[in-house]
Amino acid sequence: MKSELSALERLFYPRGVVVIGSASKGKLGYELLRQMCDGGYGALEGQRLFVVNPKAEGALGARGYSAVAAIDEPIDLAVVASPPSTVPSVLEDCGKAGVAAAAIITAGFSEIGNDEAEDRVAEAAKASGVRFVGPNCAGIVNTGHHLYPSLETRPPAGRAAVVAQSGAIGGMVLAWAKQYGLGISKFVSYGNAADLNEIDLLRYLTDDAETDVVALYIESVADGRRFMDALHACTRRKPVVVIKAGRTTAGQRATLSHTGSMAGADRVYDAALKQCGALRVGSVEELFDACKAFLSVPSGIGGRIAIVTNSGGPGVLAADRGEEVGLNVAQPSPVIQERLSAFLPGHCAVENPIDLTVEGTGEWYRDVLVAVLAEYDAAVAINVSTPYLDSLELARGVCDAADQVADSPAKALVAAFLPEEIVADSVTYLENRGVPNFATGERAVAALSFVARHKPREPALDDHSKALTPPAHGGEDGSPWPGRVDGVGPLTDRLEGLSALPVSPETNAILEPRAMAWLDVNGFPVPPFRFAESNEEAVRSCQELGYPVVMKIVSPDILHKSDEGGVILNVSDDATARSAFQKLERIGAGRAFRGVVVYPLIDGAQEVLLGLSRDPQFGPVVAFGLGGIYTEIWQDVTLRVAPIDRGEAAEMIREINSFPLLEGVRGEPRRDLDALAETLSQFSQLPFRYPRIREIDLNPVFLFKEGDGLLVGDVRVILEHNLKERHR
Amino acid sequence: MKSELSALERLFYPRGVVVIGSASKGKLGYELLRQMCDGGYGALEGQRLFVVNPKAEGALGARGYSAVAAIDEPIDLAVVASPPSTVPSVLEDCGKAGVAAAAIITAGFSEIGNDEAEDRVAEAAKASGVRFVGPNCAGIVNTGHHLYPSLETRPPAGRAAVVAQSGAIGGMVLAWAKQYGLGISKFVSYGNAADLNEIDLLRYLTDDAETDVVALYIESVADGRRFMDALHACTRRKPVVVIKAGRTTAGQRATLSHTGSMAGADRVYDAALKQCGALRVGSVEELFDACKAFLSVPSGIGGRIAIVTNSGGPGVLAADRGEEVGLNVAQPSPVIQERLSAFLPGHCAVENPIDLTVEGTGEWYRDVLVAVLAEYDAAVAINVSTPYLDSLELARGVCDAADQVADSPAKALVAAFLPEEIVADSVTYLENRGVPNFATGERAVAALSFVARHKPREPALDDHSKALTPPAHGGEDGSPWPGRVDGVGPLTDRLEGLSALPVSPETNAILEPRAMAWLDVNGFPVPPFRFAESNEEAVRSCQELGYPVVMKIVSPDILHKSDEGGVILNVSDDATARSAFQKLERIGAGRAFRGVVVYPLIDGAQEVLLGLSRDPQFGPVVAFGLGGIYTEIWQDVTLRVAPIDRGEAAEMIREINSFPLLEGVRGEPRRDLDALAETLSQFSQLPFRYPRIREIDLNPVFLFKEGDGLLVGDVRVILEHNLKERHR
Repeated sequence: MKSELSALERLFYPRGVVVIGSASKGKLGYELLRQMCDGGYGALEGQRLFVVNPKAEGALGARGYSAVAAIDEPIDLAVVASPPSTVPSVLEDCGKAGVAAAAIITAGFSEIGNDEAEDRVAEAAKASGVRFVGPNCAGIVNTGHHLYPSLETRPPAGRAAVVAQSGAIGGMVLAWAKQYGLGISKFVSYGNAADLNEIDLLRYLTDDAETDVVALYIESVADGRRFMDALHACTRRKPVVVIKAGRTTAGQRATLSHTGSMAGADRVYDAALKQCGALRVGSVEELFDACKAFLSVPSGIGGRIAIVTNSGGPGVLAADRGEEVGLNVAQPSPVIQERLSAFLPGHCAVENPIDLTVEGTGEWYRDVLVAVLAEYDAAVAINVSTPYLDSLELARGVCDAADQVADSPAKALVAAFLPEEIVADSVTYLENRGVPNFATGERAVAALSFVARHKPREPALDDHSKALTPPAHGGEDGSPWPGRVDGVGPLTDRLEGLSALPVSPETNAILEPRAMAWLDVNGFPVPPFRFAESNEEAVRSCQELGYPVVMKIVSPDILHKSDEGGVILNVSDDATARSAFQKLERIGAGRAFRGVVVYPLIDGAQEVLLGLSRDPQFGPVVAFGLGGIYTEIWQDVTLRVAPIDRGEAAEMIREINSFPLLEGVRGEPRRDLDALAETLSQFSQLPFRYPRIREIDLNPVFLFKEGDGLLVGDVRVILEHNLKERHR
Repeated sequence: MKSELSALERLFYPRGVVVIGSASKGKLGYELLRQMCDGGYGALEGQRLFVVNPKAEGALGARGYSAVAAIDEPIDLAVVASPPSTVPSVLEDCGKAGVAAAAIITAGFSEIGNDEAEDRVAEAAKASGVRFVGPNCAGIVNTGHHLYPSLETRPPAGRAAVVAQSGAIGGMVLAWAKQYGLGISKFVSYGNAADLNEIDLLRYLTDDAETDVVALYIESVADGRRFMDALHACTRRKPVVVIKAGRTTAGQRATLSHTGSMAGADRVYDAALKQCGALRVGSVEELFDACKAFLSVPSGIGGRIAIVTNSGGPGVLAADRGEEVGLNVAQPSPVIQERLSAFLPGHCAVENPIDLTVEGTGEWYRDVLVAVLAEYDAAVAINVSTPYLDSLELARGVCDAADQVADSPAKALVAAFLPEEIVADSVTYLENRGVPNFATGERAVAALSFVARHKPREPALDDHSKALTPPAHGGEDGSPWPGRVDGVGPLTDRLEGLSALPVSPETNAILEPRAMAWLDVNGFPVPPFRFAESNEEAVRSCQELGYPVVMKIVSPDILHKSDEGGVILNVSDDATARSAFQKLERIGAGRAFRGVVVYPLIDGAQEVLLGLSRDPQFGPVVAFGLGGIYTEIWQDVTLRVAPIDRGEAAEMIREINSFPLLEGVRGEPRRDLDALAETLSQFSQLPFRYPRIREIDLNPVFLFKEGDGLLVGDVRVILEHNLKERHR
């Protein structure tokens, strides 16, 4: 069985290609041959094209055979367009002939519920040693090798690779690539991904010297963690721009019916993409513009942009968009303003946008752009033309400026010449001289922001897939959950009476005092607490902790204690403690009342929430927010695929909308954000040490002022259901 | 002097047109003549074209004269392209010849700081009885009259009017109109608006029988209230889609330098446009798509949409967008699913999107679209094609479906056939048969949402410009502010000692007890309160109100009482009252300490904020939010141009993000929203009764549970500074 990478090498750089399918005019096989021929396959040394079909019919100069094995020249790639039922035997035939790779265009497999047929294809390929993309794919393209076994538009050659789960989306990008000028290195529509998938393709493109940016359209991924590893490895070498479709309920349902697999929570994908340093965009237009910008704008440019225009309105719209996407559309310094005023007429605005007015000449564009790029990171040259004006002279000025600043590192110059029908010649001129043109000033500005925002990310903590393996040190020891708690010295007194407490049979939740003790031995800051089964014991516990205290019910049947009146705040003396216990006893009557847990009353802290859950595609996910109404009403929560290091935790903390509350507003102190980041990072590692945990909520966590740390106020731990069966 | 409307009638439907400017090839005057001729002016009866220049040179069949007055045929419209200095005398010449209207293309006036020259143009026009658009404008178009005195692209005829402050933006729309198919009725770029402006044009288009939708691009308006009246009158007849540029700081600076006028706060524009029932969009693409949708989709359609596609990915993206823009992308009912399954193969998804797969035929499109439109309000037919597929047959199916549902009221069918280079013929076919095509599925869906969201609005309370006049009943009586308070019976005891309290000389603020008393006589719910100048008086006041109370400092020098420790909450007995007074006295020492004001302590209420301020362009603006961190951190405040009625107030209350807190969450009661809406509406009328008020903040207002009303907790009233001078 060939490795993915060597198979992909032969997929993209085949010496011989065979199309499997009818060579009669109008048939799929014929169209593929035609695309191959029109694209110039055969021009390079060793490039031979054949076709195989029952009639051994050839076409367009490709000789016909009735079997691949009958061809007596080396074949690397089979392009399969024969009926679905024939595909397994075709692959066997290919295997015999030493074919390394196949692109299976043929549809009619799992996408229409025909999973068995797809399994047969996969088995035949495996047995024959053939690796493949598809089935149900729109083919592949390698412009550098003149390889076009695809029905989509043949794009111009260049340095952007397009990998699309949807052939139609890939086709849109290729068609626009031709129409609006984006050079493509490689294209793959991987269809049902019965063998090679987005992970293999990303790994291949990471090292592909002909690709400088990768555009990826996905609806779901096969293995979240491995996908993250491949993606992250790729983004450390080159930018990856991603559309993850299925953002909404309707979109997810569509994805499900389209790909047959559930897409997972969109917010988790969002976190995963961010963690891997990929740029997520929302539309095919943005995907397209981002690729164009990454190919033409120096990476690592700053966000200070100048807008140079010859008409006011378009400049205003671009300035608006620039500020909205987080760029700095600041005014030029007095030095630059003076330099501009020295040669521009008085009626030209030398603020930002710099408006040359309709009188703007090519020379003005050139001199203004060169001047502003002395202090701005990037400039956008806008020209909204009318049919009677000559744009070519303006384009020349823009290109001359680009030449003059070509040696300055980290400076970008892009254009927005429009409307396209009127300025077509100028756009071609701009692109030929290396100045990318965008459809509008707003899109040019947004494209610059993609590059300015993009920073390769160092891996957080560890490879994402390795993190799934519990580390050799620590972890569970095989004893009933939470194994490591029982018998730990300083906790012994607190754990008295707890050994008989089961998890809730309904909810699979660990009772609070036991979960709290477990957090303690795992190094999390918990307040002193007491578990009490009787009223006298409860009063004694209150006295030991010192009034005022909080008393909470302990019952496996009552998960949402507050909602049921099971939390009594501000218990201030023995008498109220006694009546509080009685009240909780009444609430718990007939519902497995086990006792109460008592904590000191904590005041003056900011409450926050830390959560852990498992995503079906990405595994453990950690959440952070302020809890309460901030979470329930404003959904002001941020996620990461766990585990995360302190730096990533600090980033999570900063990115919630409520962050100003933690920094200190309206006389409140700044909170202990260092301690919070440390705890959040530690917390994110728990599911790897305790794989039987399904869900943990620390809510609230009391966060004190800087230097004073934090304390877990409440904890809810839910175990996996199948493990419950095992341990009961 | 002609009225705007009759002058505009002659501007758009001139019997004779004279171009003023050089008729030499390549000159502006010549280009305008060429556009007029190419556009077919002269074809209708009475249409005569002339040109005036010093040499009396004619061109392109238009006879040349040296003066307008020398032309012995009736002339309605002069198109002026002569040098700036000649324009006043040209207008005088026009006046003598009985020309009613002019379009002044010539630039070089206020847009380059040459205000004086522009004044001379306006004066000459006034003296001569000529009304004009411009100067510095890109001309006008009336497709129905074959009138094209403009340098922009000649668009196809149709029923959308474009009014643009920026000629370049207008030109973009016209170029796209030609390229992507949007029929234009009239176009005006009104440039510097030295005479006719956006208000006049909106008024004219309101009654224009040839216009069904108006697209408006503005950067600033001359008179906010009159603009609102004109806009509101227009939206009650036909949709108006608006780009208001200058949303951000950078954009506003650009606007300022572009139009020479400050744009006003963007959020106030946002409120004003909403109040007038206009649809605000963010980009020229959206402006274009919205016009297209309004012309082809029945107004008042609902938001339930079906997506029919022949490829998965584009369907998913459209479904995502649909849900994001608030449409309902629900699954079909079982009845419809069954009907579809009866003729579609099993592998077609009959959910929503309905994916016909690449096998989808024209008949399938037709039958599926007809079936789903039985229960959906609208359907989008998506076809992402490849070069080798025939889209025309699919387009035919879509159009046949459109014909079949043509008689059903309030059903819409739109298409997204792409990529445009591949499906150009199909798009032409679709548009010719009346099915609008959009650039992508996402844009089609967004366009539908514009129509579904759009509802003509009844006027709120009154005409906006009339509201500026204080009503005959009530209002100020000429006595020193706040005139009507002094001597009012039930307040007399509270006002003791107040007569000597001045407004703050620094801040121009009214002292709190006086402002509170004024609110009381104006019918606002204020709690009982006492003003006390001495410690004994303060203790007595506390006793009268009953402990616990709140005590606040009264000093014209201290505006932000809380920040300076000037508010003492929870004063619980005589002893704490005494020390509270002493503390406040110390804080006020040397800073015009006048005494304290005492209120009962109010607990358990939700705090909200009501604000009033004056916008330079729209006048009084009312604000509503929750105050505190909600306002400071999340800017969760909503605005309206005042005054507003109860319905509009209720809408404001509902639209803040924090609204769930008022409805009752987490065990909190629903608040008295009726009382709040009533108070907010009353509040919004105050600036009209008391024109000397610059600003009022009621913050906090205590809002109680449903039926229990509200109480003003604190008030700050700031007067206009010039009035301060008058009254001191």
